[in-house]
Amino acid sequence: MIETIDRQSGPNTIEIRPLTGIGEVHAGDNIASMIVNAIQGGVSSIEADDIFVITQKIVSKSEDRWVDLATIKPSAQAIDYAALVKKDPRLVEQVLRESSAVVRAAPHVLITRHRCGFVMANAGIDQSNVGDDSDNRALLLPVDPDRSARQLCAALAALIGWPPPVVITDSFGRPWRHGVVPVAIGAAGLPALYDRRGEKDRDGRVLAVTQTAVADLIAAAAGLVTGEGAEGIPAAIIKGLKLPPGDRPAADLIRPPEEDLFR
Amino acid sequence: MIETIDRQSGPNTIEIRPLTGIGEVHAGDNIASMIVNAIQGGVSSIEADDIFVITQKIVSKSEDRWVDLATIKPSAQAIDYAALVKKDPRLVEQVLRESSAVVRAAPHVLITRHRCGFVMANAGIDQSNVGDDSDNRALLLPVDPDRSARQLCAALAALIGWPPPVVITDSFGRPWRHGVVPVAIGAAGLPALYDRRGEKDRDGRVLAVTQTAVADLIAAAAGLVTGEGAEGIPAAIIKGLKLPPGDRPAADLIRPPEEDLFR
Repeated sequence: MIETIDRQSGPNTIEIRPLTGIGEVHAGDNIASMIVNAIQGGVSSIEADDIFVITQKIVSKSEDRWVDLATIKPSAQAIDYAALVKKDPRLVEQVLRESSAVVRAAPHVLITRHRCGFVMANAGIDQSNVGDDSDNRALLLPVDPDRSARQLCAALAALIGWPPPVVITDSFGRPWRHGVVPVAIGAAGLPALYDRRGEKDRDGRVLAVTQTAVADLIAAAAGLVTGEGAEGIPAAIIKGLKLPPGDRPAADLIRPPEEDLFR
Repeated sequence: MIETIDRQSGPNTIEIRPLTGIGEVHAGDNIASMIVNAIQGGVSSIEADDIFVITQKIVSKSEDRWVDLATIKPSAQAIDYAALVKKDPRLVEQVLRESSAVVRAAPHVLITRHRCGFVMANAGIDQSNVGDDSDNRALLLPVDPDRSARQLCAALAALIGWPPPVVITDSFGRPWRHGVVPVAIGAAGLPALYDRRGEKDRDGRVLAVTQTAVADLIAAAAGLVTGEGAEGIPAAIIKGLKLPPGDRPAADLIRPPEEDLFR
């Protein structure tokens, strides 16, 4: 659990507020400003414990992470993989360029380890609902999502007066479980991973659950209101959550291949 | 995204309310009644869209899923695994009895496929904070968590007048990512997996994200306030979330081994 604090709406209640009306994001846009402007009640309604959750797509758009697939010349390796996975060889080429390893390639499935460490489909490259020319455009993840989170935290601080916790999310599939869930790919101003090793439970027994993926819980909670494309709600604010102390990036959530306990 | 509805506390805001004061659960207890009694404002404050999220431990306790390890005689196989994973051979024996396959055994790590299909550590058997005699007692998962969810839904209906959505959660580790997150192991009254295959995005492109793990998002969101042991907050109510139609169990979330795309 993450301790919570009293709120006007009831003791210990947490609120998840979708931010509607942010609008289409273009390269170079100041999304911190767009987000603050979308908050009902304005800056004065922002509270000290508010957590800003922002979906990857608008971060990537503001950072101009577009690739025009028409300009991509696929390698022989990409062409081979494309035949296997039945995807556009230019997209596959871009996936390989974004990745450090291919984890699984099968018809309609290309799961890689992104160079940032995330194991995910298509290296997080998005061709759904990216704009009018989407047939040939693809949107990459931010170059360094933790850096993006720190930058957004600083940009928000300039507007609201303090650096708020920021989580950047993307939706991942999972081994062994159907369906996607949002997870944190970038974080600033909070401990993305809450390490409780050594703490004890009520009976004095060392806690069996010692590391909580705080930023992933926040990402999933915000995912109840944010959209993966068509719906156009690209950010949310979580109110009332008392975070554990610390400021650690989403990179802490990545389990390196040599530590993978599940295979 | 899952569509949301307007709430008094603000447009489209979702609330997560921890249920404190449920108290210690014993075998045979009517936890539906204990949960309803713990709701601030009483039954009249329960709204038609409220979702009841209940952690596995109190469900297992009410179903008397205790095992006294002193009564367990480990098999030769359990003794061999116990030496490898450095755990109590009696616990390992019970893990094996609860499991259909061992996924990974290594020092301090025993990940199995639970007979219900969940891939998880120690078959979900809990030795942390299970009560006073915890040295020799272990708490198993409910026999059939989806059935438990249906029973809780019916028991709640008897108290509040309609069958509310119910999600039973437990915390799972993940391949490739550090830290645990709560997921749904049982569900009733909602579509645990929201299948949107065939829907299109704003640009008419078929959605890339087609299956959302709704019950897992709900489990993670509730995990912001519920506890994995010491904290003693075993349930939460989520208010304001408009669920997609349907009533499908948490079993829908399980990806069978033969479909595993990640390995």
